[in-house]
Amino acid sequence: MTTPDNAADKPAEAKPGATSVAAQDWATASADPQYRAAVVDLLGALAYGELAAFERLAEDAKLAPTLIDKAELAAMASAEFHHFEQLRDRLAAIGAEPTQAMEPFVAALDGFHKQTAPSDWLEGLVKAYVGDSIASDFYREVAARLDADTRGLVLAVLDDTGHASFAVEKVRAAIDADPRVGGRLALWARRLMGEALSQSQRVVADRDALSTMLVGGVADGFDLAEVGRMFSRITEAHTKRMAALGLAA
Amino acid sequence: MTTPDNAADKPAEAKPGATSVAAQDWATASADPQYRAAVVDLLGALAYGELAAFERLAEDAKLAPTLIDKAELAAMASAEFHHFEQLRDRLAAIGAEPTQAMEPFVAALDGFHKQTAPSDWLEGLVKAYVGDSIASDFYREVAARLDADTRGLVLAVLDDTGHASFAVEKVRAAIDADPRVGGRLALWARRLMGEALSQSQRVVADRDALSTMLVGGVADGFDLAEVGRMFSRITEAHTKRMAALGLAA
Repeated sequence: MTTPDNAADKPAEAKPGATSVAAQDWATASADPQYRAAVVDLLGALAYGELAAFERLAEDAKLAPTLIDKAELAAMASAEFHHFEQLRDRLAAIGAEPTQAMEPFVAALDGFHKQTAPSDWLEGLVKAYVGDSIASDFYREVAARLDADTRGLVLAVLDDTGHASFAVEKVRAAIDADPRVGGRLALWARRLMGEALSQSQRVVADRDALSTMLVGGVADGFDLAEVGRMFSRITEAHTKRMAALGLAA
Repeated sequence: MTTPDNAADKPAEAKPGATSVAAQDWATASADPQYRAAVVDLLGALAYGELAAFERLAEDAKLAPTLIDKAELAAMASAEFHHFEQLRDRLAAIGAEPTQAMEPFVAALDGFHKQTAPSDWLEGLVKAYVGDSIASDFYREVAARLDADTRGLVLAVLDDTGHASFAVEKVRAAIDADPRVGGRLALWARRLMGEALSQSQRVVADRDALSTMLVGGVADGFDLAEVGRMFSRITEAHTKRMAALGLAA
């Protein structure tokens, strides 16, 4: 709607790379091929993440003890699918081939889900909740590093997460009924987080453009330790959530 | 858009029970407890049918050879889930407990899906297409026997089916590439239809109110053979579709 009228005011040549990507729109920011590659990677990773989440939540819905519970998990799966659609459509809109963009992240995400197949309904609920929360934390972290258009999409998708809150109530009730359940689920949540971190490291090591963007290396002045700090912020938030759930993380 | 202006012309009192349910709204039609029970049954059966379809399509999406194909089946699954939501919400709105309304149909629908788990991607596609088409035929048939409000919902859900057309192209291409595939898939489609009919008969035998409505016994003057004719119209449409697909049904 609005034209970037501040673009002309700024001394673009004054400090190389000093104009924050966050202040740019996609058309401007994507002129940098490394930034463009990073965003295609990011959208590809998020898109396949949503598609894989759809598939696993639909699978885990089978563990539901009642039809209502099944419908709750199916609703989450369906929401993830709609996120996938938005991300895929955005990839196509910026001229990237969605399948090609997703391909590099298939192994890590499939690996995560393979290593963390829930063995019962409660494990499924904890996974849905943990997965949804970590995804939402990550979206929020990464949004700040994006151009205005990409950020708008990421925040729109983020805005629609949080379907997993129903899980909290169910897990709490199960722990109240049998405190030993809490110990088992705490171990499970720790395994989920461990597996998520180890698969993330695999991705960070493999994908240069994406990692550079995550550490703020494209246009801002963050140092390399920033990616470590991001992971530790996400881990801390996870620990707090697990405590709130009655699980020692 | 058009009002049923012929309703006033008809001699409503001339034939007892001749005021067609189709000309009534829910408030009027549901005063008949048998009609009400039939609609609760119908919505319960359709709701669980959609939820089960969601679950199976999501499962069958795993057989997809590419991410794009997977996304197509996931899109269908997600559409079925939204149909489920509408039907469940309608049950709640008319004061019926959705789980209780669905329960009587769980065995038949789970039985159908258990007996017809596709063993490969092409069988999954044929099942998605056949299932979507039969559901759409059935919705259309039954709509004519419903009060205006329930009919509106059923037609709205129907309007949103037809996601399976992408399957047609893929199946045709596979048969062109290897005609022997056609013979195998024709057998498969026949088995799907046979299993659907046998599970439907089980439901018809068990659920009096629903069956009576299906044969038009509540307010219209259809004879019992009408349900047989409905099944044969659906079977004929299936046969034609299979022929169009290159499969002898």
